[in-house]
Amino acid sequence: LTMKSKTMKEKLIRAVSILLSTVTVFALMGCEQANLNVPEAKTETTAEASKVESGDGVTEDATSQYQLEQVVVLSRHNLRAPLSSNGSVPQELTPHQWIEWTAKSSELTTKGGIQETNMGQYFRKWLDKEGLIPENSIPEGEEIRFNARAKQRCRATARYFAAGMLPLADINIEYPSDSNDLEDFMKPNLKFYSDDYAADAQKQVEAMGGDAGFEGLADETRDAIKLIMDTVDMQDSEAYKSGKYGDLMTDGSGYKMAADEEPDVTGAIKTASQVADALILQYYENTDSKAAAFGHDLEQSDWAKIGGLMTRYEEIKFGAPLVSVNIAHPLIQELEDELQNEERKFSFLCAHDCTVFTALCALGVKPYTLPDSIETRTPIGVKILFERWRDQAGQAWYRVDLVYRSIEQIRESSVLSLDNPPMRYDLSFEGVETNEDGLISEADLLGLFDRTLAEYDELLAKYTGETLDKAA
Amino acid sequence: LTMKSKTMKEKLIRAVSILLSTVTVFALMGCEQANLNVPEAKTETTAEASKVESGDGVTEDATSQYQLEQVVVLSRHNLRAPLSSNGSVPQELTPHQWIEWTAKSSELTTKGGIQETNMGQYFRKWLDKEGLIPENSIPEGEEIRFNARAKQRCRATARYFAAGMLPLADINIEYPSDSNDLEDFMKPNLKFYSDDYAADAQKQVEAMGGDAGFEGLADETRDAIKLIMDTVDMQDSEAYKSGKYGDLMTDGSGYKMAADEEPDVTGAIKTASQVADALILQYYENTDSKAAAFGHDLEQSDWAKIGGLMTRYEEIKFGAPLVSVNIAHPLIQELEDELQNEERKFSFLCAHDCTVFTALCALGVKPYTLPDSIETRTPIGVKILFERWRDQAGQAWYRVDLVYRSIEQIRESSVLSLDNPPMRYDLSFEGVETNEDGLISEADLLGLFDRTLAEYDELLAKYTGETLDKAA
Repeated sequence: LTMKSKTMKEKLIRAVSILLSTVTVFALMGCEQANLNVPEAKTETTAEASKVESGDGVTEDATSQYQLEQVVVLSRHNLRAPLSSNGSVPQELTPHQWIEWTAKSSELTTKGGIQETNMGQYFRKWLDKEGLIPENSIPEGEEIRFNARAKQRCRATARYFAAGMLPLADINIEYPSDSNDLEDFMKPNLKFYSDDYAADAQKQVEAMGGDAGFEGLADETRDAIKLIMDTVDMQDSEAYKSGKYGDLMTDGSGYKMAADEEPDVTGAIKTASQVADALILQYYENTDSKAAAFGHDLEQSDWAKIGGLMTRYEEIKFGAPLVSVNIAHPLIQELEDELQNEERKFSFLCAHDCTVFTALCALGVKPYTLPDSIETRTPIGVKILFERWRDQAGQAWYRVDLVYRSIEQIRESSVLSLDNPPMRYDLSFEGVETNEDGLISEADLLGLFDRTLAEYDELLAKYTGETLDKAA
Repeated sequence: LTMKSKTMKEKLIRAVSILLSTVTVFALMGCEQANLNVPEAKTETTAEASKVESGDGVTEDATSQYQLEQVVVLSRHNLRAPLSSNGSVPQELTPHQWIEWTAKSSELTTKGGIQETNMGQYFRKWLDKEGLIPENSIPEGEEIRFNARAKQRCRATARYFAAGMLPLADINIEYPSDSNDLEDFMKPNLKFYSDDYAADAQKQVEAMGGDAGFEGLADETRDAIKLIMDTVDMQDSEAYKSGKYGDLMTDGSGYKMAADEEPDVTGAIKTASQVADALILQYYENTDSKAAAFGHDLEQSDWAKIGGLMTRYEEIKFGAPLVSVNIAHPLIQELEDELQNEERKFSFLCAHDCTVFTALCALGVKPYTLPDSIETRTPIGVKILFERWRDQAGQAWYRVDLVYRSIEQIRESSVLSLDNPPMRYDLSFEGVETNEDGLISEADLLGLFDRTLAEYDELLAKYTGETLDKAA
């Protein structure tokens, strides 16, 4: 009990000290970055600049004087078939036939399973090289943990990764179900809600479109939506001609929130994003680019534009600080618990793009644009790695990276290895310094989590009247 | 106890009735087929003829009136690095550098893991289509079993296959170890031994070379050995020049047996087979055929010739009936137990090429030559499938097939699916009839196992004086 109080007190001190310096900036700036009207050339420059700016330059060499102690992974599932609930939308909105998906709606595809297996194989080699987990070892006790949301694609992703990483170990993939009392801590729903909260969140969302709000967003996304429509020849589909989906060029979009629910974007941007989702998956699954674009000649920049619409949709839906801090709250707690689990060497938590996205937004990630990806924030199968490294003086440091396959690595099913590694991108966080090797001190890293938890408590108190004590 | 006696009695009756009709033929003919001096064109004709002759023409259509009830799989491991104990031989016997294997000596490679995962994915789709195991099910109780020899490559093969076949299930891969009392029933060693036995077995082995015995085998294999030597430029290697390995063109070969041990081939054929093993693995791993042949231009028929030497080596080492019936005995028992396990829907037992080979030889398989493979008996990752199908009258029937990847499917890492299935070859057995759909009756199939077990008991009694009762 005393121990616990002490930890609590330390956490509060850390949180308050960081809050004082950063919370204002953080709360104001939000988590969005993409502006679809930025010209292409500019986008590339931005990507480069962003890499230099927010990537903290950590390389393998930079960690050579440190010993890897722990890796906590938060992963998006790998390639899936289009979502069941949306299945009819992309099907209805084109006169063309989508490829034959190798899985039922929303489930992991064959290619997704193979790529995640191989990602696990890469981790096996990397963790062995770093001396954390010998490649043929069978972890004991609490050394490793695999957890997934109950969806088939999440559990299957965890399974394939586990087989590739630890082929000799019998791994239990835990997931919340009716027959156990595990918490669904990665569920992307609102954890608290009030009318005032919804109104303020709505304002943050609208602000993404500038002074013009949703009209600004409509203007900004119109070109990308047009490209998506043209690629699937939407105007030749019976459903579109019937008017059932309105006019994606002139209809606006909206934002809906309800207690305990996942927020929702409505209107043209949502419809376009559902078609874009299927298009991008088809582009990943089919190495024939022309066939993937239903016979149209698309440049890679066109695919990036289609991916950009998806990213913008994700930002609108989950990127407002009031939204991400709310939704990600139990996950942030779980992640901090994992990081502080002294026995744990490796954790793998698997859910969705929005899980990765809300966690990073809630933690105050600095804007970033992933290179060699058409999904520049949370590409398929992407993983956040929270890595703890110990220096020779006994001090612990953290590196927070995104690891993902490049477009080509996905489409060509490249075999990843230490010589052909996946993409790795160093993340930075608002108000958090790094040392000369680009690493974050343990106090700062845990402070990052604590300030996010404190922010949640503050919002909870503000909007629902629940106090910190009451919530604790 | 009564039940058991009854079963025993039934088994004996079945065994005796089949023995009477077939044991003489069976004991005389052995399990060898390859003769490396057969001209290439002839070999292809033989392969075709063999396919028509011994393949029983079972197609998917043939089973459409039957319901699949059970599948027992005996699998060879997938792609590995060259064996540790032999590692120095292929390394020493070439001036060239072998490719960088993606695994330690004898362990499953990255490509092997990916291909086995995908084979599991294929089985997942096939078993779902046949209505035996729904693709996202989690088997209960004794429905499934995964067992492997303790070697890394065997356990890892089982793991990858299991992940691909049952991505949602936590699978226990059982294997014999010091910490459990599981029997190593796939160990390729002699189960009984005496001087008389060794002398008789030796005669069977020598007979494979015709009247000239091992000299005949030397003559027959000389061209293939020369091709292997030329491909690795063996004569330019320091080790070969030093005389350490003798003269593979003129030295003979021999056969060694000892109690409880794996039999061994000695001399030129063994040395050549160790180099051929690494060459074939390099050919599978490296899609650049010229690089795989160290810069030489080899035709596919050349690779088949190199593979043929491997097959001949396997036949000499394990193909004599006295040897295969002896070694495979506990596995034959285990397989029959699996087939008679009423709860079991699917079993996966994983070991080596010799495991698959000795089991088939012991069961009296009719000679076969697998198409589209350079390892025409037990290609990498090959599986024997014992499938039980029930007809509409309630009668049970069996199909025994080999399932494997074609050369191209291995080298190009083709993604297997119901539309792009692996190779499937129907096996036939001496003295066993098939029905109009090419299926074997339950009594005949179990009789096949019983006659093999009876043959073992007979040999045991003959060579060691142990009687059936004593052994039982």
